[in-house]
Amino acid sequence: MKLNERGLLVVISGPSGVGKGTVRRALFQMKNHDLVYYVSMTTRPKRPGEVDGEDYYFVSRETFEKRIKDNKFLEWAEFVGNYYGTPRDKVDEQLDRGKEVVLEIEVDGALQVREQMKDAVFIFIVPPGKEALYNRLKKRGTEDIEIVNQRMKKAESEFMLAHKYDYIVVNDEVTNAADRIMAIIRAEHAKTERTIHNYMKMIGE
Amino acid sequence: MKLNERGLLVVISGPSGVGKGTVRRALFQMKNHDLVYYVSMTTRPKRPGEVDGEDYYFVSRETFEKRIKDNKFLEWAEFVGNYYGTPRDKVDEQLDRGKEVVLEIEVDGALQVREQMKDAVFIFIVPPGKEALYNRLKKRGTEDIEIVNQRMKKAESEFMLAHKYDYIVVNDEVTNAADRIMAIIRAEHAKTERTIHNYMKMIGE
Repeated sequence: MKLNERGLLVVISGPSGVGKGTVRRALFQMKNHDLVYYVSMTTRPKRPGEVDGEDYYFVSRETFEKRIKDNKFLEWAEFVGNYYGTPRDKVDEQLDRGKEVVLEIEVDGALQVREQMKDAVFIFIVPPGKEALYNRLKKRGTEDIEIVNQRMKKAESEFMLAHKYDYIVVNDEVTNAADRIMAIIRAEHAKTERTIHNYMKMIGE
Repeated sequence: MKLNERGLLVVISGPSGVGKGTVRRALFQMKNHDLVYYVSMTTRPKRPGEVDGEDYYFVSRETFEKRIKDNKFLEWAEFVGNYYGTPRDKVDEQLDRGKEVVLEIEVDGALQVREQMKDAVFIFIVPPGKEALYNRLKKRGTEDIEIVNQRMKKAESEFMLAHKYDYIVVNDEVTNAADRIMAIIRAEHAKTERTIHNYMKMIGE
């Protein structure tokens, strides 16, 4: 029996190159979950085969900018001339349905969300050490050591933001990290501040 | 990889009759855990077959009272002329070894521990409703409705103390409740305040 019926907003973030996407995919492959992946809104043109509301919500620049002004994004950014953002109303809809909405985003975006969603759960995925991250970045295709060094420098500044998160999960082994995130979600649902209201109703007070 | 190496003190409590003992036993039957059950200290005489340090630590009244004065108990109480208490040093030893120490205690004792161990995890086990608890108390052997009503009254005053705990877990189904407690323990180990110190060491800061 779950005393908290509303879904959780689960923000998975961490330094560049740590493997956030891999952990998130492992999480969705687990059994018996109510996780949904968030859908971003963007102004970039729809590509062949993409479906509105599945790959992205595709909107005009005008619509996007109006939504920014109306504070309708949990976070947004401009990237190579296009806007990308997480629409707050779409996230709320899912949470109301009892779904856990998983946001896998960069550190900048996560800190924007933190300011707006006080009851979201913020998880910082970290590598088992700096060297491990460096090796992972090197393996990622590009041979250009300059680019690897740039990314590493960015990651190092992001390393220092761990204290802004609720949980720190080491991505030493992907299924291990996913397991721990699932435990965090289960535990968060039992937290007193999320359950006390329905608890008082249940005991008839 | 576990960033927090110290064990957790896990306090399982809840209104009389809720089935704390059953949930605790189910918890210890789970696989791959580092849980240890705490051993109380008492002044009551050792019974045949009881082992010092396993069933209880058996001490004299004098020793017990000296320990109370020296603040060496996480909680203690006098019951039918004998003292019972949880020795702080024995608990600390286990935590230092990375063991999770599980305390299954009444609400009064739990609130004593809360004052002394700020980083312990406090879990309030609740029945799925007042009626469920009433029926459970009635089933507990005694036919004396007066005693059932007295216990129910005690439970009802304890119901109101849920907000003093970190988590509320419904004991609708024992393995379900035990699962959730295990998730809470895993999640608590990943909490930023418990991991940040070793994390900073790991990344070499």
